Amino acid sequence: MTITTLCYIRHEGKVLMMLRTKKDHDLNEGKWIGVGGHLEENESPEDCLLREVREETGLILDSWKSRGIITFVNTKYETEQMCLYEADAFHGVLKDCDEGFLEWIPEDRVMDLNLWEGDRWFLERMFREQGDISMKLVYDGDELLHVIMNGKDIKG
Amino acid sequence: MTITTLCYIRHEGKVLMMLRTKKDHDLNEGKWIGVGGHLEENESPEDCLLREVREETGLILDSWKSRGIITFVNTKYETEQMCLYEADAFHGVLKDCDEGFLEWIPEDRVMDLNLWEGDRWFLERMFREQGDISMKLVYDGDELLHVIMNGKDIKG
Repeated sequence: MTITTLCYIRHEGKVLMMLRTKKDHDLNEGKWIGVGGHLEENESPEDCLLREVREETGLILDSWKSRGIITFVNTKYETEQMCLYEADAFHGVLKDCDEGFLEWIPEDRVMDLNLWEGDRWFLERMFREQGDISMKLVYDGDELLHVIMNGKDIKG
Repeated sequence: MTITTLCYIRHEGKVLMMLRTKKDHDLNEGKWIGVGGHLEENESPEDCLLREVREETGLILDSWKSRGIITFVNTKYETEQMCLYEADAFHGVLKDCDEGFLEWIPEDRVMDLNLWEGDRWFLERMFREQGDISMKLVYDGDELLHVIMNGKDIKG
């Protein structure tokens, strides 16, 4: 089992998104996602959040909140527990990233991007609602099979 | 890194606590803690929460909420990410547990129990405040060295 963080930084009606294009063997290649990565030894999820945002964007977060945990189950990969965050204040200057291209995307355009299908399920809730999201996404490779909330498959 | 859940079930001014006495080589032996355990393969934290509460107490949770993540770093053990929950509604009949003795403890008596020192730090906040707790507890074996919140050691 692996643990990661993912952060959506929101600012003046836009969201900082990354188009993943630069890493070899990146399972996210060609997809737009938020900023984040794997927890290192002895890190808390917040330690990882702050480090990954700083490393990937050059920005220092001043205000953030946890938005829950997304569990990714996949026939082809290890199960991943992803701690989801959003942030609304930061300082510093946006820099180029080794792992992809960063772009501020208007919130109402995010769903037009090439996203993982499962990400659409939690992003739509994250932008629309407050509170913690607890969601399990079950994939067979690239194909989303189930979206489980409160023990029920809401994908239908 | 290992991932666990821990749940404090609150009911009529009392909290369901477990005195851990029955497992061999239990690092919690002699300590009072909540109900929980390790995530199994393909489980979400909520799956694990519901399963562990059912297995250890016989109770089925009807209402619960996430209270954050506690990170345990210890010179002697693997780093643990513990998803913290509280619950306030359930059905079923309390049963004996294989791992220890269960007892409903009045909330104002919980701090009198033999607790892990670090647990006092998050329990006191959990009972007093709403909202997510993000805390890193750094131990050397049984000895609590640091209590990190927002990047600062608040143990002093």
